[in-house]
This record gives sequence, structure tokens and C-alpha cells, in this order.
Amino acid sequence: MADVVSFRKEEPNGLLLREANGPVLRLTLNNPPANVLSIALMEALLAELNAAASKDIKVIVIAASGKLFSAGHDLKEMTLHRADDDGGRAFFERTIRLAADIMLKIANLPQAVIAEVDGLATAAGCQLVASCDLAICTDSSTFCTPGVNIGLFCSTPMVALSRAAHRKQAMEMLLTGETIDASTAKDFGLVNRIVPQQYLRQVVDKYAQVIASKSPQALKIGKEAFYRQAEMPLADAYDYAVGTMVENMFARDAAEGIGAFLGKRMPEWKEE
Amino acid sequence: MADVVSFRKEEPNGLLLREANGPVLRLTLNNPPANVLSIALMEALLAELNAAASKDIKVIVIAASGKLFSAGHDLKEMTLHRADDDGGRAFFERTIRLAADIMLKIANLPQAVIAEVDGLATAAGCQLVASCDLAICTDSSTFCTPGVNIGLFCSTPMVALSRAAHRKQAMEMLLTGETIDASTAKDFGLVNRIVPQQYLRQVVDKYAQVIASKSPQALKIGKEAFYRQAEMPLADAYDYAVGTMVENMFARDAAEGIGAFLGKRMPEWKEE
Amino acid sequence: MADVVSFRKEEPNGLLLREANGPVLRLTLNNPPANVLSIALMEALLAELNAAASKDIKVIVIAASGKLFSAGHDLKEMTLHRADDDGGRAFFERTIRLAADIMLKIANLPQAVIAEVDGLATAAGCQLVASCDLAICTDSSTFCTPGVNIGLFCSTPMVALSRAAHRKQAMEMLLTGETIDASTAKDFGLVNRIVPQQYLRQVVDKYAQVIASKSPQALKIGKEAFYRQAEMPLADAYDYAVGTMVENMFARDAAEGIGAFLGKRMPEWKEE
Repeated sequence: MADVVSFRKEEPNGLLLREANGPVLRLTLNNPPANVLSIALMEALLAELNAAASKDIKVIVIAASGKLFSAGHDLKEMTLHRADDDGGRAFFERTIRLAADIMLKIANLPQAVIAEVDGLATAAGCQLVASCDLAICTDSSTFCTPGVNIGLFCSTPMVALSRAAHRKQAMEMLLTGETIDASTAKDFGLVNRIVPQQYLRQVVDKYAQVIASKSPQALKIGKEAFYRQAEMPLADAYDYAVGTMVENMFARDAAEGIGAFLGKRMPEWKEE
Repeated sequence: MADVVSFRKEEPNGLLLREANGPVLRLTLNNPPANVLSIALMEALLAELNAAASKDIKVIVIAASGKLFSAGHDLKEMTLHRADDDGGRAFFERTIRLAADIMLKIANLPQAVIAEVDGLATAAGCQLVASCDLAICTDSSTFCTPGVNIGLFCSTPMVALSRAAHRKQAMEMLLTGETIDASTAKDFGLVNRIVPQQYLRQVVDKYAQVIASKSPQALKIGKEAFYRQAEMPLADAYDYAVGTMVENMFARDAAEGIGAFLGKRMPEWKEE
Repeated sequence: MADVVSFRKEEPNGLLLREANGPVLRLTLNNPPANVLSIALMEALLAELNAAASKDIKVIVIAASGKLFSAGHDLKEMTLHRADDDGGRAFFERTIRLAADIMLKIANLPQAVIAEVDGLATAAGCQLVASCDLAICTDSSTFCTPGVNIGLFCSTPMVALSRAAHRKQAMEMLLTGETIDASTAKDFGLVNRIVPQQYLRQVVDKYAQVIASKSPQALKIGKEAFYRQAEMPLADAYDYAVGTMVENMFARDAAEGIGAFLGKRMPEWKEE
């Protein structure tokens, strides 16, 4: 049923499995054993996100193969580049900037992005979960930002974490490096739902289909507006959101959707 | 006992019932069956809020009659205006701007504003709950921002919702349009307290009286400062709040209140 | 074992007990019965924080002796100064500014600051708890911002409280002046952990030692970045945090820490 296009590990893009299922695109980190975010994996992920931006895709799921979601940056790769002429500076900057670009891209995509988490998400792996619009995890998933344990504070993960959770809770994770369980992560605002492992894929798929059944115009308008207005003072945010909503009234899908609602029928969204 | 001035539905202002009980003003949305926020209802509400600003009122309760709190904007009214020369643009702008003005007015009022919710609060109805300083609801109340279901994203409700709740939780409501129960709304930060239906009015009244027993000067100073400092960087917020608090020390009620506290007696606030 | 330097109450600094235990500095408010933040106590506290900034200290614990954590500003002292030529203005400004300076200093210190709370923390006492990076309290601890009861709104405590908790929850404390219990404070984001009274000191000490075992370079880099990036728009925050993290890679402790991690050995942090 699904239009599955997955790559084998041996192929260039084997680091990132790609599976298109109608309006839902599933991207699976596939860099065993810890799904570290090497340059190659991050470039593949950013390329897929960039390509998705203009495609007929409504929801993107970011999942991971194996027992860990992601252990964050590839410290071996980074350490090897300490032998570079510049001591690794250019490589470190490329690595950390690339991760930040992925997180910003997730916020800037017109599509909803869901993290599907099973197992440990640490450092930049935790940043990735925090950066997705939504996150669903198994009850055995765990989360941490342990950079402080290796002398490299999780400064970029902190940007995402401190925008998802309360300050003291974010600080606790950052200063102690301690691992929190799924339930605590939900309390902190880091994940939306916790499900038993055997149902994870099923729940995420259903959830993705629910969102994919909505008007793509409305999703695009709304998601863009969300991150923009979040950074404005209240009165400015309203000025901006009022304009957004008035324009939205003239979108084809709003006429159809409101008409369907008033007529008590199902709406039919047209593809872009 | 109460100085009740309620209007019948037939009267012009029957859309909004008004009941003054000493320092507590109760405004009841009365537009059955769904208390949709028509232009007429919103204008009546904004007029009452504007009038209250300069009156001897300390707490405003926004309640609703019937089984729904409010289903948000009046989509029938808006749809009829698609036949206007401008396709409805002026009317849509008026409608959505008016709602935003109400939400901003609530933040700018010197009085505390409490939402008293029983039943469903959806879209701009949910925005109204999120915008009040405090919210108390029954255990059977529910909340949603379902614009995404009709092609019209809840962009203005999002402004209030994303300032009340964590990002991922706000996003979940906005992207899925799903309805959350009272307990989840409390977890999200959208309501302060949940009470059994038969005690709702009683609890809100008691709560309003508690706030109304405080110094109106202090309430006014504090509420104004709250929303202002919330938008400032930390150091600026302290500069501003230090100035606010020093001035507050010279308010008549601070002298009386501190004197009463040190003298172990009840303070007596003088009316403005 | 501990390098204890505590002062007796009779001595000038008896208002603030100081106990250095290796990398952990414990400062204990000691102004019975309510540990009010008199000018003398606040000056002693700020002086200790300023001195700590440049010392070989990794964690600062702010605790309190007696049954209350702190009842906030010294209202008797302030009231006496109403007899000053300026009606107390200079003294009020000095008092409230000094408290704000302490809160800002806590955010600006390179060290982690933990509030150890047992009993009531009210007004500026609650502000102090909210301002610490982390807070651990006993299950019988309580919190409130009751300025509204004495005509002096808790405007400066509000700055800290509204950055730690959701808006409606902060508003509830500020407008009603009601006291919340430890469990509610944890839900609100005001404290990180709740422990039985007999284990408080032990848990805080262990927690402090965990943080103190981390790289002081990383702690300093990370804590500074936390409060800075928190006030920036998302893209700016990433620009800043990427730069921070690249520089961090060239810190001595990052080379040692990453090397230790890859070599599966314990890192050895060198003192500054």
C-alpha cells in the first residue's frame, strides 16, 4: 500500500532511510549503533527536509532504527579533525552549524514534523526531539543533555530545550547531565505522548494521518505563523496574526472547509 | 444582596448578560446555542470591558450560559459577507480584529479577569479562556483550536494559547485540532482550577471575592506590570519592576497594608 | 573533612553563615525568626556572590536556618524609613534594587546556584527561590507572593516567577496571594525536586557534588549562554550558541572530556 522507497545501508543514502506513504514522509536515522549525527547523516537529513519543503507532503516523521534514537554529534569524527591545520575549527563549525540549520529548517518547513522516539535521545539527538513540532515516544525512551560530562556544554541543544520546557527543568538537564525518563519528559513539555513500544509506529502513523487529513494550506499558514508570532510582543503578535487569519479566509481551503462545516459534510482539500 | 442588572435575551444587550455584585462584575455570553462570538456579542463585550476600566470594579468574571462556553467566531455571519463587494475582507478584518482587541483589553485592564468555563471552549472561545488572567472550569469542560479542520488555522487563538502553554502542547492542539479535557488543560497551563459543575459558580464567586478583598491599587499596579515585564529582557524587567515597586510603596494602600500587617490587624482599603 | 568557616550570630556576618566544602559554597540565611532580607543580610549575600564569582567554587547553595526559608523584605526596616526626609524613597530604592541585583547576579554567576528550601518562602524569599538555577525543597515547604495582601504588589518577585512558571499559574499566585504547597510548586516549575525533611541537606549536598564533578569551564560557558540565548529570537539564539559551542571545543576540558569519553575512562578536569 505504501510507496516505499528505502535504501540499503550500503548505498550512499543508507544512513537515512526514506519512506513515502502518501502525504506522510518518514525519515529514519540509520547510523548504527547510536545513530550519531555525522556530517553525512546530517547532510542527508537536511537535503530531504529541503526537498520536502516544495513537495506534496503534509507530515514528516523523523524516526530512528535500532535501540537508540540518537546519541548526538559524532565525537569520533570531530576528534579526528583536531589534526586539521586549523585544529578542527572549520569542521566543528560545519558540524554544529549543520545541526542548527536542521533545527531551524524544521521550524521553517510548511509541514508538521513529528519525532518518533524509541530509546535514548541525547545531546543533539535530544535537540532534534525538542525541535520537532511534536514528539511521540515509547515508555522506555530516555532523554539527556550530557555535554557537561565531557567538558562540552550542550549549548545548541539548550536553545531547543529551553524553548520547550520551563527554565529550571531545562537547567536541571543541562547542569546535571542526568537522564530523564519518558514520563518526566512529558511533564517537562519535551514530548506530547507516550505509548507502549509495540504500538509506537502504529500510533505515530495514525497521528500523522490525522494531521495529513487537514488542509495543507491551513497547516502551512499556521505553522509559519506559530514560530513567527512566538517571538513578538503581544500586541505585535496580534497585528500579525489578524493579518494572517484574514488572508487565510481567502484561501480556497477556508471557503471549502467552512462551507463543509456549515453544510455538515466532509471537506475536500484540493492539492496545491 | 447582589446588585443584579441582567438583561433579557430580547433586549439589545441580551447577548451579553451583565451582573454587578459589589466589586465583582459578571459578564455572561448569552448567544445560544453555541455562544458564537458574533460582531454584536463582541462589541457588547468590548464595550463592557472598556466601561469597567474606569469603574469601581475589582474583578471581572467572563462566563457563558448554556452547555457550551463558546464555539468561537460566527462562521455563518462571516460566510454571508463573502457576498460583499470586497469578498468580505472588511468584515473579516473587523471580526478578527475585534476579537484581538478584546484579548488585548483583558491584558490591559486594571482588574483581574477570570474565565468561568463549563462545557466546550473552541477556537476564539478557547482564545478567550487563554487570554483571561485566570480560568476555572468544570471537570466536564473541554478545549480545542480546530481551525485546521475547516481550512482556517487558529492563528489568533494561537497567540494566546502559545503564551499560556508549552510550545509542543500548543502545537498539538493547533495541528491536530483535537479536543482536550479539563485535566489536560490544567496540565497545559490553560486553566488554574477544575471544580465539579454544581460548585462552579460558588467557587468562582469565592475566588473573585478573595481577589476583590485586596487593594485595588496594588492589583492595578501589579497586573499592568505583569504583562509589560513579561516582554522584556531580564535586566530591563528588573529596572522596570524596581521602579514600579518603589512607586507602589508611596501608594496609600501600601502604607495602610504594611501598617496593618505589622500591627497584626486587617487592612482597610479606601475606594479610589 | 569540610573546610567549615561558619560565623556566630554575634559576629557582623552572622546574618549569613558561610561554609566552604571543597567546590561547594553554602550560604545560609540566618536572620531569625523569618530570615527577612534586611539591607545588612542582602549586602552580605551579594558580597559573597560577588566574591564567589572569581573563586574556585563550582556550586553555590543558598539555604536558610530555622523554620522559614525567608519572608522577603524587612517591612519593619522599610517602615522606619518613612520618617526619612524623602519619605523613604532612597531607602526603598536601595532595598528593592539590592534584591534585584542579587537575582541578576545569580543569573550572571559562572557557578550553578541551588536553592535549598525548608519551610515558607514568601515575596522576595520566593523570588530568591525562583531566581536560583535549581531548587530543592522539603515536602512541607510552601511558597507565596502575598504582596497583594498588604497593598504592595510583588512586582519584582513577579519577574522571576513569571520566567519560571506558566503565566496563568504565576498570575494565580500574584493575584490571590495564596500559599502553594511543594507539590504544586513543582508542577508550576518553581522547584526541581521535593525530598523528606530529614534528607534535605544530604540530597542537596549530593546534587551539588554531582554538578561540582563536571568541568567548571563547561559549566561557566553553558550557564552564561543559557540566560543570554533565552532572550533571543530562535535564529539569533542558534547563531550565538553555535559560536559558543565551537569555542567550547577548544577549551582544555572539552579535549580531555571527549578523549576520556571515547577512551572509556574518567575525565580529569584541571583547576582554572
